[in-house]
Amino acid sequence: MNVKACPLCESDGGLLVFRNEQLRVIQASEAGFPAFYRVIWNRHVAEFSDLSPAERATCMNAVAAVEQVLRSELQAHKINLAALGNVVPHLHWHVIARFDWDSHFPAPVWAAPQRPSDAEKLAAVASRCEDVNRRIAEEIAP
Amino acid sequence: MNVKACPLCESDGGLLVFRNEQLRVIQASEAGFPAFYRVIWNRHVAEFSDLSPAERATCMNAVAAVEQVLRSELQAHKINLAALGNVVPHLHWHVIARFDWDSHFPAPVWAAPQRPSDAEKLAAVASRCEDVNRRIAEEIAP
Repeated sequence: MNVKACPLCESDGGLLVFRNEQLRVIQASEAGFPAFYRVIWNRHVAEFSDLSPAERATCMNAVAAVEQVLRSELQAHKINLAALGNVVPHLHWHVIARFDWDSHFPAPVWAAPQRPSDAEKLAAVASRCEDVNRRIAEEIAP
Repeated sequence: MNVKACPLCESDGGLLVFRNEQLRVIQASEAGFPAFYRVIWNRHVAEFSDLSPAERATCMNAVAAVEQVLRSELQAHKINLAALGNVVPHLHWHVIARFDWDSHFPAPVWAAPQRPSDAEKLAAVASRCEDVNRRIAEEIAP
């Protein structure tokens, strides 16, 4: 059920980390946040409550799996989860590892920055992401 | 298991709409967003993945119920869901009715405003919230 002109129907939406029939995980690598992942529901639905209870559980199990990998592999200070979709109304969950030294902490990543980015610390996180991606795929796959 | 100095252990955290043993729903009424609700897990845990799978399902069923009421009662343009907790690391889900005329749309509520608030439209939404609150309690209660 692809919707024309929906960027999440027309492409993976980032570096593909895992995919099954129902959902996929991509690494978005937004500027300043190397460990910025998205769990994207493959079917085009706008809202979380468009999913059945069983689908919601499948979706949130994947979100929790990504979260747990970010916690254990990166010792993130906090994990931020969000399903907004105001611009791209195709259900996707942002799963973002936050660090107390990152450019926006403790503000949300969408708010004004609190300080300059720390290139060295960001590079250290980015260097871990290949392992993170492998572990995410292992955790979600049956 | 109350944690001292945690505002969500020490108080409801807003206008109490519903409460059971595991969770509560409050209306936060942040400035410019009268239909800004939070589903707060009563027990002090920081991260969504600190919950068991069964608890996660209970939590997200409540989030989905609030979402569905906001959709049906307010004809919201979009629902925004987020669990951030960078400032208050006690698991709480923001459930926010968004409208294409609101001060920040399509940006997240935490970003810079896009336009001035529309006091008349906000008052119209606010006037519906008593019904919304009653319906939320009905939907979540067994």
